[in-house]
Amino acid sequence: MKVSVGISNRHVHLTKKHLEILFGNGYELEELKSLKQPGQFASNEKVTIETPKSKIEGVRVLGPVRPYTQVEVSKTDAIKLGIEPPVRDSGKLEGSSPITIIGPNGKIELEEGCILATRHIHITPKEKEEFGLSDVSKVCIKVNGEKGGILDNVYLKVADESYFELHLDTDDANAFLLKNNDEVEILVGENCEQ
Amino acid sequence: MKVSVGISNRHVHLTKKHLEILFGNGYELEELKSLKQPGQFASNEKVTIETPKSKIEGVRVLGPVRPYTQVEVSKTDAIKLGIEPPVRDSGKLEGSSPITIIGPNGKIELEEGCILATRHIHITPKEKEEFGLSDVSKVCIKVNGEKGGILDNVYLKVADESYFELHLDTDDANAFLLKNNDEVEILVGENCEQ
Repeated sequence: MKVSVGISNRHVHLTKKHLEILFGNGYELEELKSLKQPGQFASNEKVTIETPKSKIEGVRVLGPVRPYTQVEVSKTDAIKLGIEPPVRDSGKLEGSSPITIIGPNGKIELEEGCILATRHIHITPKEKEEFGLSDVSKVCIKVNGEKGGILDNVYLKVADESYFELHLDTDDANAFLLKNNDEVEILVGENCEQ
Repeated sequence: MKVSVGISNRHVHLTKKHLEILFGNGYELEELKSLKQPGQFASNEKVTIETPKSKIEGVRVLGPVRPYTQVEVSKTDAIKLGIEPPVRDSGKLEGSSPITIIGPNGKIELEEGCILATRHIHITPKEKEEFGLSDVSKVCIKVNGEKGGILDNVYLKVADESYFELHLDTDDANAFLLKNNDEVEILVGENCEQ
C-alpha cells in the first residue's frame, strides 16, 4: 500500500481575531495557492515568529482561519528558537510552547501554541475501510534509498473531505531525502517493523 | 546491542594548504574541544560556505588537517544552499557538490567537496568481532519514542583508534528527536527491519 508525500514547512494557523491583530481590522487572508486538503490554502501573508532566544522571519500563514492559533515548526527550527515544543496533533495545544507572532499591524504573545506536528496521513472513512485499516489508528512508513528506513507513529487523520496524503515535517523529509509527491509504503501492525 | 549517539553539525575538514589560504601562511588550527574519536578536535576556527544561491556563516573547522578538503552539510543546509550533495563516506569526493569556502585571509572555490555524510558507527576491529559483527559492513538503528523508527544503511567504520559511537547528521537527529549521548539499538540483518 503506497501513499504520496506532502512536506509541511514551518507555518502558522490563525484565529480571525488574531489575524486582525496582526494584519488589521477586517483583514482577510489572500489565497496564494490551494493545498491538496480540500478548502485549505497557502496565503500570501507571512509573519515573524519570535522567542527570547531568536526569531524566524517569513513564516507562511495557512488559511482559512481556524478556531485556534497554532505555530508548527520542525525540531531544527525549535533548536534555533530555543524552545522544546511537544509532538502534537493540530489543535491539541495544552502545555505546548510559548511563542510570539509578529505581523505588520501588531503582535500576539502566546503562552502556548507552538508544536511539532504529529506524523499523519489524511484519509477518508471510505478509504480507511477499503484499505483494510478499519481498526487501525496509526501505521508506519517505509522509505527506500540511501537514507531510507522506517518512520513510526504515523497517525491516520480521518475526515470525509480528505486528500489521501502523508504529511511530514521538513526534518523527517530531509532526513529520509524525500521530496513532495514521492511515493512511500505503508506498513501495518502493532509494532510495524518487527 | 546499544550504541550512543554523536550528532555532527555542518563542518569543514581542510588540507594544510587550504588552511593556509583561508587563514594565512603557517597557520595552525587551535583546539577548542577534543572530540570522542581519538585525535580529532573541534577548532576555534570558523569559515563561511557559499554557493551562487546562498551562504552559511560560522561553519566550524574540525582538526587536525586532512589529505583532502571536505564540507559536510545536512540536506536542510543543502536546500538552503541550492545544491544536491551526494551521500558519501569521508574522502569519497568524486562528483560531489561544488562549494566555496571563505576565511579571513582568502577563499577556495572547490569544484567538488560538499557531501551529506553517510550514517556510520565508529568501531574497532576487536569490538566488531566481540559484538559478532565480523561479516557485517552495515547495520540499522532502532530509535524509540514519539518520533521513533529505523534508520537503514548505517555503515561500520572500522579503525584501530576508534571510540564506539553512532554519527548522525542534524537532520537524522532532529527527525528522530535524538540528543548527543542518547542510546539507541543496533539491528543486524540483510534487511534489518523485516
